[in-house]
Amino acid sequence: MQLEHTSKQYDAELESVRAKVLEMGGLVEQQIVNALDALINVNLTLSDKVIANDHRVNALEVQIDEDCSHIIARRQPAAGDLRMIMMVVKTITDLERIGDEATKIARVAQKVSESGRLYTPRFNEIKTMVGHVREMLRTALDAFARLDVTKTVDVARQDEQVDEQFRAAMRQLITFMLEDPRTISMSLEVLFVAKAIERIGDHAKNIAEYVIYMVKGKDVRHTTVQEMEREAQEP
Amino acid sequence: MQLEHTSKQYDAELESVRAKVLEMGGLVEQQIVNALDALINVNLTLSDKVIANDHRVNALEVQIDEDCSHIIARRQPAAGDLRMIMMVVKTITDLERIGDEATKIARVAQKVSESGRLYTPRFNEIKTMVGHVREMLRTALDAFARLDVTKTVDVARQDEQVDEQFRAAMRQLITFMLEDPRTISMSLEVLFVAKAIERIGDHAKNIAEYVIYMVKGKDVRHTTVQEMEREAQEP
Repeated sequence: MQLEHTSKQYDAELESVRAKVLEMGGLVEQQIVNALDALINVNLTLSDKVIANDHRVNALEVQIDEDCSHIIARRQPAAGDLRMIMMVVKTITDLERIGDEATKIARVAQKVSESGRLYTPRFNEIKTMVGHVREMLRTALDAFARLDVTKTVDVARQDEQVDEQFRAAMRQLITFMLEDPRTISMSLEVLFVAKAIERIGDHAKNIAEYVIYMVKGKDVRHTTVQEMEREAQEP
Repeated sequence: MQLEHTSKQYDAELESVRAKVLEMGGLVEQQIVNALDALINVNLTLSDKVIANDHRVNALEVQIDEDCSHIIARRQPAAGDLRMIMMVVKTITDLERIGDEATKIARVAQKVSESGRLYTPRFNEIKTMVGHVREMLRTALDAFARLDVTKTVDVARQDEQVDEQFRAAMRQLITFMLEDPRTISMSLEVLFVAKAIERIGDHAKNIAEYVIYMVKGKDVRHTTVQEMEREAQEP
């Protein structure tokens, strides 16, 4: 049957787009992990690799965008599918920017490596923050894959925690700088890393919000965690 | 004629979406201007206003997103129109984030005001940077409005300038902090303002790139200024 055949192809196209989004998500997560590793272990080879790999993230964004446009143009998707496609278009923008933040961390790793390590910052807070944003990203992408909003509220909650951790890291860095002004330049680099991680958290939260919209048809962007919780829990 | 009638309505719908994008652009530009004003003149009323107005920016984003989905679902737009709509969806994400950055500047203005002004930073570099990103935003939105890519390359060039200004501002702030560690906290606030402005520049550049894609059908994201220039100049 022609119709069924076409419909199966259409399903395969939608599935392919979703698989590519998850591939892109896996890639940017690896970029975050490698960037942190490069920073902590002063590994120049790895920071170079992160920077070189950013083009793969970018290429995936462009490719998925094109796939989405083709599907819209040829398949005239119905409400639910269209919502999914629009949210994919938004999601990959956030994933691409997570990739950019990972690249920024890799650049700081390069600088730390070149600085001759007069002062080696402690990265405990940074590590904790990265642990959190990785979990946020995974939870958001898992919700996207399963179209299951149950855990999306956790992402919003963790985002608040990450924001608080960023502020704590900043207070600590100010203390270091006051105690020993020679640490100022390097402390600022660490601060930018913390800022990059905090942004990654924001992007993961955006993705979680898109999933709620995709599944529930309700826009929870620009609302509170409480409102988001209500939406996610409604049957 | 029914067909022409429908087509006119369709044109009006597309035109309405474009007008709303420009309205949103005007609003975020005003938010930037007010946030800077609040910061420089330690004007709490104005910083409160910027923060309160952010919901208007957010509401426009949600509304334009919905308009775009409706047009796609009902009108099945052809290639050129579809490209325009997809780029609108991307553009308003960047505009919304410019709004967020303006809000961040307004929050710093609040802090400066509450700090009792033990140390009042000089804002000359910040003012220059804001001048640049405003021009970038205007040029990008103007290109969007006219579907004219002639000046989009200027936006990419100015973005490089803004990035350099950010680095210069950072070096200067490090000097201040070294000379007088009591200025560290406030200098970091100024640094975050500079960072917010630098991000606004990035978003304006994104919008300019979307316009090139919309007009030329070629994706210039993730390319160099030189490549962008080539694309923009090709007939």
